[in-house]
Amino acid sequence: MGQVPIPSHGESRHGEDEEKGFAPMSVLTSDDHAEGASVPPSQVDLGPAAALSCRECGERFPLGPIFACASCFGPLEIAYDFPTGDPEALRARITAGPQNIWRYAPLLPVPADVADHPNLNPGCTPLVRADRLAAELGVTGGLYVKDDSANPTHSFKDRVVANAVEAARAFGFTTLSCSSTGNLAGAVGAAAARAGLRSCVFIPHDLEQGKVVMAAVYGGELVAIEGTYDDVNRFCSELIGDPIGEGWGFVNVNLRPYYAEGSKTLAYEICEQLGWKLPDQLVIPIASGSQLTKIDKGLKELIQLGLVEDRPYRIFGAQAEGCSPVSRAYRDGHDVVRPVKPDTIAKSLAIGNPADGPYVLDIARRTGGAVEDVDDARIVEAIKLLARTEGIFAETAGGVTVGVTRKLLADGRLDPEATTVVLNTGDGLKTLDAVAGTTGPSATIRPNLDSFREAGLA
Amino acid sequence: MGQVPIPSHGESRHGEDEEKGFAPMSVLTSDDHAEGASVPPSQVDLGPAAALSCRECGERFPLGPIFACASCFGPLEIAYDFPTGDPEALRARITAGPQNIWRYAPLLPVPADVADHPNLNPGCTPLVRADRLAAELGVTGGLYVKDDSANPTHSFKDRVVANAVEAARAFGFTTLSCSSTGNLAGAVGAAAARAGLRSCVFIPHDLEQGKVVMAAVYGGELVAIEGTYDDVNRFCSELIGDPIGEGWGFVNVNLRPYYAEGSKTLAYEICEQLGWKLPDQLVIPIASGSQLTKIDKGLKELIQLGLVEDRPYRIFGAQAEGCSPVSRAYRDGHDVVRPVKPDTIAKSLAIGNPADGPYVLDIARRTGGAVEDVDDARIVEAIKLLARTEGIFAETAGGVTVGVTRKLLADGRLDPEATTVVLNTGDGLKTLDAVAGTTGPSATIRPNLDSFREAGLA
Repeated sequence: MGQVPIPSHGESRHGEDEEKGFAPMSVLTSDDHAEGASVPPSQVDLGPAAALSCRECGERFPLGPIFACASCFGPLEIAYDFPTGDPEALRARITAGPQNIWRYAPLLPVPADVADHPNLNPGCTPLVRADRLAAELGVTGGLYVKDDSANPTHSFKDRVVANAVEAARAFGFTTLSCSSTGNLAGAVGAAAARAGLRSCVFIPHDLEQGKVVMAAVYGGELVAIEGTYDDVNRFCSELIGDPIGEGWGFVNVNLRPYYAEGSKTLAYEICEQLGWKLPDQLVIPIASGSQLTKIDKGLKELIQLGLVEDRPYRIFGAQAEGCSPVSRAYRDGHDVVRPVKPDTIAKSLAIGNPADGPYVLDIARRTGGAVEDVDDARIVEAIKLLARTEGIFAETAGGVTVGVTRKLLADGRLDPEATTVVLNTGDGLKTLDAVAGTTGPSATIRPNLDSFREAGLA
Repeated sequence: MGQVPIPSHGESRHGEDEEKGFAPMSVLTSDDHAEGASVPPSQVDLGPAAALSCRECGERFPLGPIFACASCFGPLEIAYDFPTGDPEALRARITAGPQNIWRYAPLLPVPADVADHPNLNPGCTPLVRADRLAAELGVTGGLYVKDDSANPTHSFKDRVVANAVEAARAFGFTTLSCSSTGNLAGAVGAAAARAGLRSCVFIPHDLEQGKVVMAAVYGGELVAIEGTYDDVNRFCSELIGDPIGEGWGFVNVNLRPYYAEGSKTLAYEICEQLGWKLPDQLVIPIASGSQLTKIDKGLKELIQLGLVEDRPYRIFGAQAEGCSPVSRAYRDGHDVVRPVKPDTIAKSLAIGNPADGPYVLDIARRTGGAVEDVDDARIVEAIKLLARTEGIFAETAGGVTVGVTRKLLADGRLDPEATTVVLNTGDGLKTLDAVAGTTGPSATIRPNLDSFREAGLA
């Protein structure tokens, strides 16, 4: 479950000082990580990450646990000093790296020795050549499914949380935290356990039992909040502003600039798996929109570094009709995204006020893509289509991307003769309810051949 | 869920003729796979697989869809013509292969071009260096968890089914089938979908809703049988003996010799991930016992081929106390395994009459290992221990191996100073009920800081 960080005045003021928004909350008093401690910027080693940069006004800030520009409240993102020189040398270095996202460490905000740290090591998930799905959809140019259900906790969240863990270590944080109603809770709990960090995850008190088990089994603090998910988020903002929250890394709030970069690895992997080539078209789900914008960022970096040929690609965003603020804005030709109240089975995409919505609109328009949505019935159909043709059981978010792909092909907006990559970002095991009502045995018979024949199965 | 093939007279007679038990059920009438057709042995290309060999009397049979010796009813296994010559060349060939089990194609009963076939491509799952678990258990020699929940349908079954799919193709089968109450149903449904084969999976009619969804979503035939799991198995045996069943590959019955070889890849991967070294000790779960015997076979092959140094290793088998026929036989010093009626939460290991039990006893004794069991409460404790220390949420079978590891260390039967590999063969998401009763929020609070403090969380 993605969340929308609301850069409130209170939060960003927390870090305002002469260092342009970065205030070490305290100085380390021992050699080791100390509760509530942070690390002076000069001692922060996050590899090629050079600074934080405001996406709106461009102002730069030293690396620190902040997420909003002190001047304009715009979102901060990582600015890099990338390796220069021979692309072949960089490519060889990546290829020789581990079979996980850390092979791309030279392009991420992580220290060079990141692979030696205990970490869930997500990534290098299959890019499945989906010929049977392609045949059903009429795609002739090569259709691929990037299947991120293969990650350790079975969603793409492992990629972003793994990056947040490294930032937490770098800033001397000892508690990893988030608010969540799903995938993120498990990803944070598991990552903290492996890393030896304390975790404290906040959930609404009425969460389904299955999701509670998944969030609790890793043994961190799991705090149920009497209230809605919005109440949970508001409480987390309060906690960040309070002394209690010092030493706490909220992966998708004060660590968000680092966390979000994890999604770039989807772009890197797709291109490497295609033989260091850009796909022509990508269909990406939209929750906060961060994943889509970071995949675009990742593709641009590969071009900039000479790792892939510089040629056009088109990015398509996919939403559920019951939570489609970005596709509505796209359809209406607006630059601003009007918040909605979500009502869809695609709960991992149910963010009614997507923080990166305007950036998504810009990318879809700039690259010649589009943003589209599908209704819940078609999401279920698409989940079953993908399962039936490729043996991939996707989360509802995967139903959204496959369903939107089908719609865009029918409309002629996706080119069937172009190389197309569709993302599945989660696992059907986590959203069984979505398909339970329409899936079941084809027959129930007595244990004998006559009964088998009578059922028309022979 | 593993199953016990019962080599009944009726089934093995099915294949009895002058070809020593192999009878092509019919000859292909077209160039393509035909329903109910088989392929003459001389046309079967399964790479280095040369013949079937009886594990009891050693008699050899041509490669075919049979599983029991026509002479003595002993189980058949694959005999190979392995590549001879420079181990370095073989190692280089494997290392240059794909990141899945097909890198070991030269050692499996699959054609050389197997990686070009649509297949779920399981394997190359993480070997997790489990330092935090090691610290809790007092292991100093290096403790690793081989985490097979990372496979496409999140259990080791994908390895064996992938091999069965290749055998099904080779024999011209067009329907992939099995009886199952769990992991196998999903693995067969998904693998058949990807491969473009028809599937027909048989389950007891009273299976839990979640498992039914997982088995049905891939769109194959899912047949619920009014009866117990034993009734389902009996019906499947009837089906194999009937003309209806011609052209059907039951992965764990008539394709069992090929299917079972998939477990060898666990041995290959573990050694390659350790830098082409044998571990000193392995802790492996026992259902039918096939996985343990095939891991031993895989290790012996690596030694034989010069890919690892020839030195002793010890194999430990792990059962749940509620289904522990092999550990009881081990404890009592028996060679024969007395069947039991299973009663344990570890349902994927609940085979009361394990076909490979005697072979497991022999391997544990011969290698200086042991067979041990743990009760359900300790299985749950072990699941939570593994989750808390390493961020791995294991199926009950993983709780069994971790629980047995802990017990064997406490008893001094596992050497804490030796390199030890513990298998986790499945995913906790599939057995949520096992931990649901003892896992939940640490606190429920109102959304304010006072409530947070009062709960003792600050």
